[in-house]
Amino acid sequence: MRIALVGGTGEIGEGLALRLGRDTAFELTIGSRDERKASDCADAYCRELRRHGVDRSIDAATNELAAEEAMVVVLSVPPYYVTETVAAIEPALDSETVLVSPAVGMSGDDDGVRYNPPPAGSVTELVVETAPDDVPVVGAFTNIPGARIADLDEPIDIDTPIVGDSSDAKETVFDVVSELRGIRAVDAGPLSNAAAVEALTPFLITLAQQNEGFADLGIKFV
Amino acid sequence: MRIALVGGTGEIGEGLALRLGRDTAFELTIGSRDERKASDCADAYCRELRRHGVDRSIDAATNELAAEEAMVVVLSVPPYYVTETVAAIEPALDSETVLVSPAVGMSGDDDGVRYNPPPAGSVTELVVETAPDDVPVVGAFTNIPGARIADLDEPIDIDTPIVGDSSDAKETVFDVVSELRGIRAVDAGPLSNAAAVEALTPFLITLAQQNEGFADLGIKFV
Repeated sequence: MRIALVGGTGEIGEGLALRLGRDTAFELTIGSRDERKASDCADAYCRELRRHGVDRSIDAATNELAAEEAMVVVLSVPPYYVTETVAAIEPALDSETVLVSPAVGMSGDDDGVRYNPPPAGSVTELVVETAPDDVPVVGAFTNIPGARIADLDEPIDIDTPIVGDSSDAKETVFDVVSELRGIRAVDAGPLSNAAAVEALTPFLITLAQQNEGFADLGIKFV
Repeated sequence: MRIALVGGTGEIGEGLALRLGRDTAFELTIGSRDERKASDCADAYCRELRRHGVDRSIDAATNELAAEEAMVVVLSVPPYYVTETVAAIEPALDSETVLVSPAVGMSGDDDGVRYNPPPAGSVTELVVETAPDDVPVVGAFTNIPGARIADLDEPIDIDTPIVGDSSDAKETVFDVVSELRGIRAVDAGPLSNAAAVEALTPFLITLAQQNEGFADLGIKFV
């Protein structure tokens, strides 16, 4: 099975590429609007993996071509690029593709960082609105600490809540996460719970701002 | 220092009484609208503590009398009793009393349990609106798993976010929590973050509903 990290040149894409590259045998494609940038990043990720004793290939392509061959497409782009990215890859999507949404809309003020969802209710639901009707959408990797995930020397033990209305698509994502060391998938129910999941991310950032010694927090349900 | 658990005959009151009774030397008063009920509960908590090798007294009183002598007053009542309880104890409150709010408004539907805050924005802010202006209010113990806390044989390792606009009052609550085994206080910033904290509780209940083997979850920031 192939996983495409669309917009995979950012921090969350880097982290997922490195962890998926180290811990799983899935074929991986880094997508970017700029194919050259995707290629440079894929090379850099492979070098980083080799430094950790893992010799494997990671492909690179434009976002649309990356999505074309993948069964799981992770929209690892900032929330304000979500709609244009889904529009760009739309020809590559069908009912067999699982579209994964990790992005969160946030805004900051003096009291911390606040959840700032789009009118759809959540970024995950915005993806549902934007994608063709038959494409299953799953919210996942929503609250994972980007910089720590991107550092393979960093031990992690965190949970990632999974939301979606297609149980088959959620199961596919559960199967992917189950291969990642130190990340446990937990079922957070249907898409209507996506806002509750996304709202955790600004809360984690606020906690990191308010408490000394806290940085790049993850969440664990115990 | 004396801590009053107003409405301390319910599950959250029981758990806090038992943990505070076992782990700390603070004087404790169980409050209830019905003094006899408070007294029966205090006796039962003392018996339970003796079963765990702890011999200590716990006082009982009406809610107002319980609040009168306490420096920390925990509103361990359901959210729909918060305003009438604050009104009942108001004569006992002053700027030296720290009023602690653990309650959360929730509603259920087929997709799980949802956060259902009062118009004030959160129960903690409702307490601020209801209490005299000079009484500092702190949100704490908001997401702790009631039944597990009330079982002293249950090992726990959870966090409790603390919100409030008075840093002195928050520090008092941090000092209390620091003596409880397995519960870490984390600073979640000012009162305006109370809704983000309270919203975690219905999310934890939803996760417990959606995942086999999950029950009475706590949260840990890692």
